[in-house]
Parts: sequence; C-alpha cells; structure tokens
Amino acid sequence: MGLVVQKYGGSSVADAEGIKRVAKRIVEAKKNGNQVVVVVSAMGDTTDELIDLAKEVSPVQTGREFDMLLTAGERISMALLAMAIKSLGHEAQSFTGSQAGLITDSAHNKARIIDVTPGRIQTSVDEGNIAIVAGFQGVSQDSKDITTLGRGGSDTTAVALAAALEADVCEIYTDVDGVFTADPRVVKKARKIDWISFEDMLELASSGSKVLLHRCVEYARRYNIPIHVRSSFSGLEGTWVSSEPPGGYEGHGEGTPGAQAALKNGRSEDSGQGDQSMEQAIISGVAHDTSEAKVTVVGVPDKPGEAAVIFRAIADAEVNIDMVVQNVSAASTGLTDISFTLPKSEGRKAIAALEKSQGAIGFDSLRYDDQIAKISLVGAGMKTNPGVTATFFEALSEAKVNIELISTSEIRISVVTREDDVNEAVQVVHSAFGLDSESDEAVVYGGTGR
Amino acid sequence: MGLVVQKYGGSSVADAEGIKRVAKRIVEAKKNGNQVVVVVSAMGDTTDELIDLAKEVSPVQTGREFDMLLTAGERISMALLAMAIKSLGHEAQSFTGSQAGLITDSAHNKARIIDVTPGRIQTSVDEGNIAIVAGFQGVSQDSKDITTLGRGGSDTTAVALAAALEADVCEIYTDVDGVFTADPRVVKKARKIDWISFEDMLELASSGSKVLLHRCVEYARRYNIPIHVRSSFSGLEGTWVSSEPPGGYEGHGEGTPGAQAALKNGRSEDSGQGDQSMEQAIISGVAHDTSEAKVTVVGVPDKPGEAAVIFRAIADAEVNIDMVVQNVSAASTGLTDISFTLPKSEGRKAIAALEKSQGAIGFDSLRYDDQIAKISLVGAGMKTNPGVTATFFEALSEAKVNIELISTSEIRISVVTREDDVNEAVQVVHSAFGLDSESDEAVVYGGTGR
Repeated sequence: MGLVVQKYGGSSVADAEGIKRVAKRIVEAKKNGNQVVVVVSAMGDTTDELIDLAKEVSPVQTGREFDMLLTAGERISMALLAMAIKSLGHEAQSFTGSQAGLITDSAHNKARIIDVTPGRIQTSVDEGNIAIVAGFQGVSQDSKDITTLGRGGSDTTAVALAAALEADVCEIYTDVDGVFTADPRVVKKARKIDWISFEDMLELASSGSKVLLHRCVEYARRYNIPIHVRSSFSGLEGTWVSSEPPGGYEGHGEGTPGAQAALKNGRSEDSGQGDQSMEQAIISGVAHDTSEAKVTVVGVPDKPGEAAVIFRAIADAEVNIDMVVQNVSAASTGLTDISFTLPKSEGRKAIAALEKSQGAIGFDSLRYDDQIAKISLVGAGMKTNPGVTATFFEALSEAKVNIELISTSEIRISVVTREDDVNEAVQVVHSAFGLDSESDEAVVYGGTGR
Repeated sequence: MGLVVQKYGGSSVADAEGIKRVAKRIVEAKKNGNQVVVVVSAMGDTTDELIDLAKEVSPVQTGREFDMLLTAGERISMALLAMAIKSLGHEAQSFTGSQAGLITDSAHNKARIIDVTPGRIQTSVDEGNIAIVAGFQGVSQDSKDITTLGRGGSDTTAVALAAALEADVCEIYTDVDGVFTADPRVVKKARKIDWISFEDMLELASSGSKVLLHRCVEYARRYNIPIHVRSSFSGLEGTWVSSEPPGGYEGHGEGTPGAQAALKNGRSEDSGQGDQSMEQAIISGVAHDTSEAKVTVVGVPDKPGEAAVIFRAIADAEVNIDMVVQNVSAASTGLTDISFTLPKSEGRKAIAALEKSQGAIGFDSLRYDDQIAKISLVGAGMKTNPGVTATFFEALSEAKVNIELISTSEIRISVVTREDDVNEAVQVVHSAFGLDSESDEAVVYGGTGR
C-alpha cells in the first residue's frame, strides 16, 4: 500500500457538483489500496469574495487578520469535501493547516514553511481515514497565529506534506491536462508533456508557465517528491515532474498503481510522435511571459562597480528583477548600456530608485518599455547541442520577429521581443523544434490561483 | 479600568455596513477606558448558506466535519471586524474558539463548555488590543477537534469568557432594545424592562422569550455575571439581567461607566411609569410560546408508579418535555388523565414511544393537539401575593379565553390555551398587570440565531 497526496485547486471544487466529482476521484484512489491525503483550495471565487468584503471594511488587505479571513475559504471547502466523501461510505477527517502541522514563520500573507509535523494526519490515515487538509495556510511557530502561504500556497502545502509523510507521489489536480510544450491558447498544436525533469520545470515556471509555480517545484526537487500534474475533469494521465522518467519509479510502483501503464496509454494516444522521447530529452517546451517590462540604463561608465551600484539601488527598493543583460561597451565612448526586465507592477518603483541614484551611478538616461514579451525555450542538454540556439534564432528571423535582448542558462534560452510578436514567435519556435502535435487539442488552459 | 465583554449577533454584522457600525461602537467602549473583548457570530445568512452547501454534498448535516464547516462563518466575521477596528486606528486581534481557550466536550454540534482558559485573550487585552473571539465554537478536550456549541452558543461563549476573565459586565448586542414585558409584535404597548433578576429571566426564557436563551442566563447566574442586553442599532440603554438591580453594582462601577446614569435616562424617557419599580418587583413580564404541542394520556390507572412508567418511556425516546399536569382521578373509575407539553417537532416520537408502551402502562387512549399556546406570567414574589393568580385568570376569563392546563412555579404561572387565542390572551394579561406603556413603541423584535 502506498501513500498518495492529492491536491485540488479552486476550479476543481468550484461548486457542490465539483466537490462531489472530486470526492469520487478521491474514493477511487482509496479503493485502489492507497492511503490518501488530500490538500484542497478554497472553492472557486470564495477568496475573491472575501477580499471584496475586506475592501469594504478596511483600506488595508494585509496582516494577521487578513490571513484569518482568507483561511475561512479552505475551511469551508475541506469540510464539505469530507462530508461528501463520508456520504460515499468512506471515512474522512478534515484538518486546518495548524492541525496538520504546517509550521511557518510569522510573515503574514506570504509565510514560508519552516517545519511540517503531520502526526495527526499520519494517525488519521493509519486509522483508515482519508485526511483532508486545508491548503495555503499554516500556523506561525512563534506567535501561534494563523498564516497564509501566499501565491502557490496550496501546491506547496501538498508537496510539503508529501515530503513529511514520505508519500510516493504528490498529485496536483487542476483544470488542464498537464504541462504543455507551449501555452495551448497560443499554440493550437501544443502537446502535453508526459515527463519533465524538476530542472526543466523550474525553468518553465520562471519563464511564464503557470501550471506549477516555481516555489512548489523547488520544494519537490529538494525532497525528491515526484509530482503528477493532471486534470480533475478528464481523469487522463497528466505530466510527471520528477528527477528521472517514470520508468525509474518502479520502486515507488505500489503507490502509483497503473502509472506506467497509463503513461504508455497516454503515449499511444499521441500518435505520430515516435521520436518524442528523443526530442524531449533536449527540448521540454516554449514558455512566454508578457507580464514584464524592460528598463535600460543608458550611458553607464564601463568601469568596475557600476553594475553593483545600480542593482543595490534596485534591491534597496525591494524590486525583484528577472533578466539582466549588458553588452560590451562602445570603445569610442567608454560607456555601456545595462538592461533588465522586471514585473510591470514594479516599474514605477525601479525608475524612482534609479533616478534617485543618478548622481552616484552617473548614467545618461533611463528607458522604460512595457510593450515587451519574453520567449523562452527550455530543455536539458541545450548547451551541448549548438544547433539549438541557431535553430531558435533562425525561426524567429524567418518570422521577422526582432530580438531585443538575449539571455541564456544551462537549460534555457530567453529572448525579449515586441509584445505584439509574441504569439507568432511562440508558434514558429514550437514548430521549429518539432513539438507540434498532429492533432489540434481542445483544452481549457488556466493558471491555478493558489 | 474595567473589562467589558461584548457580544454581537449575526443581524448586527449582516454586511460590511453593519461591521463598520459595530466597529465604531466597540472603539467607543475602548475609548471610555475599558479593556474590551468582543464575541461575534457569523454574518447574517452565512450559516444558512453553509448549511445549504452541506445539503448539496451530503445527506447528513452533523458531526465533526459539519462543525468544521459552520465555524468558517465566525472566522470571516471576526477577521473582518478586527480589520474594521484597525482601520479606525485601534489595535485588534481575532481569535478562534480554540485560540481563546473555549474547551468543550466532544459532542459535536451541541458541545458543552467544560473549561475556559483565556490566557491569550488576557495577554492580548493587557497589551492594549481589542480581542475579537469567534462565538459558537470551541475545541474538544479529548480529540482537539473543532466543536460548535449549538443553539445560543455565541451568547454562552460571551458569558463564559466574561466569567473566566472576571469581566465587569457582559453586553449582549442584538436587534431589539432589550427584554420586553411581552413580545412587542403581539403587545404594542409592551415596555422595555430596565432590570430583571436572573431567576425571572430564566423563567421568561423557558416560557418563550427568545432574546436570551436559558443556557446563557443559567451560566451567567452561576458565575454572577451581569448581562446587559441592548440594541447594536439604537445605542439605547437596554435591559440589565443580574442578581440585584444596577444600584447594587457600584462596586463594578468602573467597568460600566455611565451605566447608572444611562439607566436613569432610560427611565426618564419612560414617562408616566412612576410606579414601575414597585410593580416590577412583582411582575417581570408575559411570555408566550406557540411551538409546543399537548399530549394527553387518557384513562391511566391511578396507582403508584404509573407516571414513572410513562415518563421513562418518553425519556428513553429522548424527548424533552415541558409542562406536566395530572388532576385528581375520578372516584368512580379509579382512572386519571396525564397531560404534558413538548416541542411540536418531537410529537411523533413521543406518540410512537407511548403506543409501544401501551401494554405496560395500561392507558385507554392518547390525544395529540398541536393547536395550543402557552402563556406565562413571570415575576418574583408571585406566590406570596395571592391576588396575582386571581387577576391572571380573571383577565383571561373576561376575554373569553379558555384555560386548558395550568402549571405554576415559585415565580411563574403558565396556562395552555387555544393557539388562536394567544394574542388576545397576552394583551389582556399584560394590561391587567399594569405593564402597558403609555406610548406605542415601534421596535423590531426577533430572536438571536445563535
């Protein structure tokens, strides 16, 4: 018998029908001989409704009380889910984050997990119950106050519990069939990925893919917890995120019965993709992100310490930056330009911070551009395969997409283009690397809220 | 500086406006130099909405998970209330029943408080915060599960906290101005009672008055916590429920600044009631109840042990009964009739239990009547004032209201009449005892949900 942690997002439990559908799925996993721990988000729009109420009574939506408010959402969904499971004839108990042992720091609204002590959960499943745990919430170690984990919190709860309970797999149920080679809303022929490494998934997540958040994948990699991202609607085999392809999981086989078989089925359905595994070994997918802006610091003296002064000013303003690019300086002037990207929402702060430091840095001017898109190609072994970069740039060139910035890592190439070009750019790159599926897949694609 | 516990019902915090209004009232109490602990119910219809959701996913609305579900309602209202207070510039912290130290037994949906350990609440108010506590909920001593206290739970939470914190007063805010000499919907000239003893209040509560529930008054009497029932809408002085009239509270004066003055104001507004205090010493009010039915066991052998057999059968069926009346037997037959009243909702169970025991009891037949009303006159010193009973029956007689059953206690006379006669009966009795106010008062009258 294995132990499975399943996580269901808000769209999967949006109403009573959704809760009953999810309850059946959970009971199935239990009937297959597993111990089952379920992490659940708040129902559909509950959180937004609570935020609206908060806005009506207070101008401030932060802190201890805001966390207390928001955690009511999961309390409702988890209790209803437990009741729905019981009405199917199986025993279920629901637990708050605090009861489940999710110990966090005291940073309200964005708490970090510092320990997981799932004694009550272990006892509950050992007694034959299905344990339902509220996602997104914990209790602070110092003050014993209720905390929330911020964005991606429920996924992180699930992975953290899976690690602490030494689960065989953490199944993340969402409203899409898995992780795709590109955003299916943009690329009609995007293919579902059967398996992806933690590292590639991390790059995809930080390059704009919204199915799994970076934080949750990072946690899973640290504790080597295989994640299975799949749809709570279709019941199809989804995407495995793990250190090795599922074939390597035979040791975990008990906990994920049928996983291998289902994976084979999934593959056989994707007809005409005989070379998928080979390709996949190199390219996982194409991600894009239109949420960023570009700042260029023009005319920076090309001498040691200049970049440090710039990015200290940015850091002091608590602005998170993404890509940083500096080209060689023009020999004639001794001046260089430094560009970086950052969330559009932080643009104003960054510009203000730089303007304040203009004297210390000594640049000529600032340029701010929020009409950009970032397109990233992610895949292991990219660096040792020089054709990849060339093919990438050629595809963009043929589509007449201009490249404004380039940045590469071990397993990723990112370029910045005009925002208007993003759909075209993602399409041509996806095709150029043979990622296109032969059939158009009709899928609903959306991010998970928490 | 005194310590005040305030409780606000669901109708007082039905929406964002209500929450902001209540927040201002709380801040006022704090500004008057008090330490303030607030117990709050779920917003307006929240609980009903949660129950509807539960019905959609499960046929069973009981047990551990149902408690987990329902307690989300208070979590929302208390967090919003704390946020609203903070936005007025005062510090507030909200606490679940568990965090506030409300320790209960494990009887889900109707838990009894077995201990209150309000250490965190005391610390919070000592640090200058206003502490907001979720009403209606606790945590079970044995299993550490979330429990709810059942009907009247939030009032009981407030009184229990007031007792544990040694508060000066427990203010119960509701949507009526206080406890009235009769239901103002029935008796237009019903008067607000300025002060009533615990004992009289207990009799009123068990005779149909819905402003305070029996359980909460009982708790207050045991720990001698003065209750002040008042409206969260009008801000007027309400009704004091305590062991002695407020004049006797001078020792508590610090905690209830202005109480005496306000009480005097309240009285001066009730013009033309110069003899109120004297009358009040005898008669507190008239209560009525149309929620009961009457069962008559006809032709019971008049010998020892018969009543015991009947009421053991009723008790074994877990039916709560109210009045019990047995008259002398007819000498010719040696048979008697025994009547009792009980909630209409339990009528079927009681009849079934008696029919099953017909052989053992040996009665002739059963009569069931759910078209009855109970009218009760409550007041201290009634028994030593023989005119009271006579006046009561004369008033009913003049109004041609037939009396079907009579039952009396030290401070109460109750009669059962036809349900159709109830309004008329309450009116005439109210007038007969000089309880009528000179002016018609326009008040909204309603029970508190929890």
